[in-house]
Amino acid sequence: MPDFRVPVEDYKFLFRHVFKMDENYSKLNCDNDFSLDLLDTILDEAAKFSENELAPLYQSGDEEGCVLEDGVVTTPKGFKEAYSKFIEGGWTSLTGDVELGGQGLPSSVSLVVNEMLTTANWAWAMYPGLSEGAVATLESHGTDAQKNDYLPRLIDGRWSGTMCLTEPHCGTDLGQMKTNAKPNGDGSFSVNGTKIFISAGEHDLTENIVHIVLAKLPDAPKGTKGLSLFIIPKYLPGESGEVGKRNGVYCGSIEKKMGIHGNGTALLNFDNAKGFLIGQPHDGLSAMFTYMNVARIGTASQGVAAAERSYQGASTYALERLAMRSLSGVKNPDGPADKIVEHPDVRRMLLTQRAIAEGGRAMIMHASEYADTYRNGISTNERDQAEQKLGFFTPILKGFITELGVEAANLGIQVFGGHGYIKEWGMEQIFRDSKIATLYEGTTGIQALDLIGRKVLLDKFKQLKLFSNEIAKSSFKNLLATSVRINIKGIKASAKLLKLALKWRYIALRIALRAKTDRDEVGSASVDFLMYSGYVYMGYMFMKMSQVANNFSGDTNIDFYKNKVLTANFFFDKILPRADMHASSILSGSQSVMAMPNEYFSQ
Amino acid sequence: MPDFRVPVEDYKFLFRHVFKMDENYSKLNCDNDFSLDLLDTILDEAAKFSENELAPLYQSGDEEGCVLEDGVVTTPKGFKEAYSKFIEGGWTSLTGDVELGGQGLPSSVSLVVNEMLTTANWAWAMYPGLSEGAVATLESHGTDAQKNDYLPRLIDGRWSGTMCLTEPHCGTDLGQMKTNAKPNGDGSFSVNGTKIFISAGEHDLTENIVHIVLAKLPDAPKGTKGLSLFIIPKYLPGESGEVGKRNGVYCGSIEKKMGIHGNGTALLNFDNAKGFLIGQPHDGLSAMFTYMNVARIGTASQGVAAAERSYQGASTYALERLAMRSLSGVKNPDGPADKIVEHPDVRRMLLTQRAIAEGGRAMIMHASEYADTYRNGISTNERDQAEQKLGFFTPILKGFITELGVEAANLGIQVFGGHGYIKEWGMEQIFRDSKIATLYEGTTGIQALDLIGRKVLLDKFKQLKLFSNEIAKSSFKNLLATSVRINIKGIKASAKLLKLALKWRYIALRIALRAKTDRDEVGSASVDFLMYSGYVYMGYMFMKMSQVANNFSGDTNIDFYKNKVLTANFFFDKILPRADMHASSILSGSQSVMAMPNEYFSQ
Repeated sequence: MPDFRVPVEDYKFLFRHVFKMDENYSKLNCDNDFSLDLLDTILDEAAKFSENELAPLYQSGDEEGCVLEDGVVTTPKGFKEAYSKFIEGGWTSLTGDVELGGQGLPSSVSLVVNEMLTTANWAWAMYPGLSEGAVATLESHGTDAQKNDYLPRLIDGRWSGTMCLTEPHCGTDLGQMKTNAKPNGDGSFSVNGTKIFISAGEHDLTENIVHIVLAKLPDAPKGTKGLSLFIIPKYLPGESGEVGKRNGVYCGSIEKKMGIHGNGTALLNFDNAKGFLIGQPHDGLSAMFTYMNVARIGTASQGVAAAERSYQGASTYALERLAMRSLSGVKNPDGPADKIVEHPDVRRMLLTQRAIAEGGRAMIMHASEYADTYRNGISTNERDQAEQKLGFFTPILKGFITELGVEAANLGIQVFGGHGYIKEWGMEQIFRDSKIATLYEGTTGIQALDLIGRKVLLDKFKQLKLFSNEIAKSSFKNLLATSVRINIKGIKASAKLLKLALKWRYIALRIALRAKTDRDEVGSASVDFLMYSGYVYMGYMFMKMSQVANNFSGDTNIDFYKNKVLTANFFFDKILPRADMHASSILSGSQSVMAMPNEYFSQ
Repeated sequence: MPDFRVPVEDYKFLFRHVFKMDENYSKLNCDNDFSLDLLDTILDEAAKFSENELAPLYQSGDEEGCVLEDGVVTTPKGFKEAYSKFIEGGWTSLTGDVELGGQGLPSSVSLVVNEMLTTANWAWAMYPGLSEGAVATLESHGTDAQKNDYLPRLIDGRWSGTMCLTEPHCGTDLGQMKTNAKPNGDGSFSVNGTKIFISAGEHDLTENIVHIVLAKLPDAPKGTKGLSLFIIPKYLPGESGEVGKRNGVYCGSIEKKMGIHGNGTALLNFDNAKGFLIGQPHDGLSAMFTYMNVARIGTASQGVAAAERSYQGASTYALERLAMRSLSGVKNPDGPADKIVEHPDVRRMLLTQRAIAEGGRAMIMHASEYADTYRNGISTNERDQAEQKLGFFTPILKGFITELGVEAANLGIQVFGGHGYIKEWGMEQIFRDSKIATLYEGTTGIQALDLIGRKVLLDKFKQLKLFSNEIAKSSFKNLLATSVRINIKGIKASAKLLKLALKWRYIALRIALRAKTDRDEVGSASVDFLMYSGYVYMGYMFMKMSQVANNFSGDTNIDFYKNKVLTANFFFDKILPRADMHASSILSGSQSVMAMPNEYFSQ
């Protein structure tokens, strides 16, 4: 597998020039000394760690996997050592509360660092990734005592976190949950039940594992309104931050999975496990959503990671492998054949992967500005507005980018031809790993329903209007400002995007009108609507990036900016046409989806 | 993993009603007693064998894989026993020459049987599948002595075949091949070299393995015009059909692959192996194409197999798994939730899988009529015409259907949610297996170049005109004959298809015109053109099937026909819009594909 290098320049370009993140940083209620120069240092160091410590363990981690023996899960060779270096370097504490040992940096910083870690080693990066969600939940909903008990250790990384929702018979539909919690009379609870698919559920990287668990209280109302959230540590907190007594949560088995073999995905048995209520009784799901929203944006960046890693492998191969002569004339007369990068279809595949990585990365960075304000904005009003925007973006990011991540990883195999199917090259591993991202933290279908149902229809189109207006105005401005003679591609791209941004609302309205008489219109259109939204959003990002890059035409780093414009051109020509396909599918309605009687599906 | 049942009814519907294959059978130079009734018996028996003997070994075969020890490859438990039953049942001899022990049936019969076998157990089915190609090559290009030496044993299944093209440094670009053959002076040759990725290259199912090998003679011209084809058996033929002396071909290793673990994909070392020239010196590639064409259509049916198997798993699950309530009202008031098949997006996924399976199957059956005539047509003229048609269809079938097979298998995982990612359910195996089909026997990119380059441009649009005319005429006729009041869906579908069939030629012409000044237009457009062609072809099949099914509205088997019409409606509404997306991408030209300098790809 080719060496992995972090696209640090791309991160810096986005932070500094495209989104001018420092303007927002100065308005936040966090570390005031934080500057883009400091950020550059963090990015450089995180890149070194990812390239040198994590990337070399990517393939061996897959091959070895996690092993369960006598209740103890051993992670692949090197994982534990890398994790020790990681916490020594202070990487788990980036965004943590300063008073509890954290560095108080904005969320956008850790999102980018996580993307690097995931690109280098997906299964490994899930361990600290899950801890972040636990921290966010405790920060928002924990009591002061709970914060003191758990946050310092989660922030310094000596303990890690998980999120326990799924049970064998229910994942999406948590209302069917059976795990129950009975009060012990001392303020604690006794929890019994079985949870499955628990990422980082059992492992040997940390001294303790803090499970955030949904369960039902004895008097719980039926359905999702009867779920409460509990902290259930593997070891109860002891004196002065050390671990105390072993708690009743045990790993029953490690799942045999398609990929992410280096992560200990556990079945956990809670056997009179001592738990501590977080937040209000029966209000666990809304508290859990603090966790879920963090996790969903993190999962979106896994789509970018798959695309980036696969692109790097495929482009390296395409620049080395010799096969056939270019149809437009011999390019490598001294060799037995031309490099395969000369062949247009290989370029098409590489550029698709690249556009997915760069476009997806820009989308996440764009949204992360709102994540920063949501978490560290000074006024309640600012925070609320950011939360609403982020709520609209999140399902698009999660659903759309992870689907495209799988596509990119698939193309990575394809560029390698038969070699892509062989484990040695690592390309098939990226594909296998990438697939989990469309499933966990809510499948693509769930993201799509969240988007069209809650974030568009229930929101009465408010966020959709704001965002589509922003895109339409920006495209229109760009259209008028661009010279036909100099940049015909730019004109065409802006015109296409303008049209699609306006059509976005039209489509949503059509769905809403039809849904008045046929509720199944919503579900029939949902994934097409999600994908349409994703392409428009990504198009907006490419327009922004292209504009900024065009302005740097005299810069010393000219190649980087030219490259960016060329990738954007490719996106507008070859990928954006997909939006209209999704629109056609939506506008054809629900009838052909719903007409088949259930029993016909088994015939 | 849910039980697998062969869609026998669908095969019979296609054979008997849609393509009326008996009309063509009566014109062929093969078994004259062959009838559709006999065919029904064959299909029923093959279905039993597939369901009872092969399907149960699908998952265990993946888990165990093939094991190489001391040069001997052991296949997974049960594979050998199933193969013994297979040859006892006479299944390897279906299409073989009657004089050499075969049953003399048309190729379309074995194509369908192979599809069943592959759907039941992909890795297992590759063993007899590869033998068929070896038989075809020997039939067409072998001497009488060679036919007598090898065909009886290949036809009775006691020996199996392979096809050895790829070497470590070249697969697509066979001109770079290094394996060489030196004359021994006695008419035989001494072959040295290394071949990789040899499917069924070493195993314990048969007494002997007959390798069909490309190699270079000492005086070979450079490039692909200097390749010769050799028979290199693992054991030289001995007396009266038994095996003789061990030949110098050895398995160096078994590839570690993403999927098809039950097939012994071998690296073979030829060490002064004794080989026998097939056909003319330096004319090996054209002889090998006899093999390749058989293999490519067989590979296309693997795409159908992936879609069918994955659909069956997903639809069974969707009819059992309970989650959430339907948005259009509770459907299962006595249960804790509704079946997930009630949710529109789950239906969308299932119907997409189903449309791919049924549409792809019809495409292959449609083409197999020409395969029958090509192999057993009475006049040279008939055979030539059939060959040309088949040549046009083959890259579409292979490239398009295998890509859609991967898509369908991906959706199968998605329907299962997180469970789809767990090995136990078998869905991820189908996905892993399915991916090989877009790679071997020529990647999708190679099929696409074959289509647009050789089969459209070099053919001067002849076959494209014939086929698009056929579709346009048929759509137009259907449009006029359909009543707006009774079948508005049918009208719309015919109108769409008519438009797309006409646009097909327009697009090809645009590519041709641009290619005059820019050869890279061809490669830039190739895969989009392949996919466009596939959707139009599949649309034609759904129109045909829908027409026939509509005429059976009073039949006792009414559910089957209604089901078919509903699947067709779904295809036209939700899948056919993809064709226009590919057209847009093609018409945007090559500039955005070619503009990026090579060195930018590594930045």
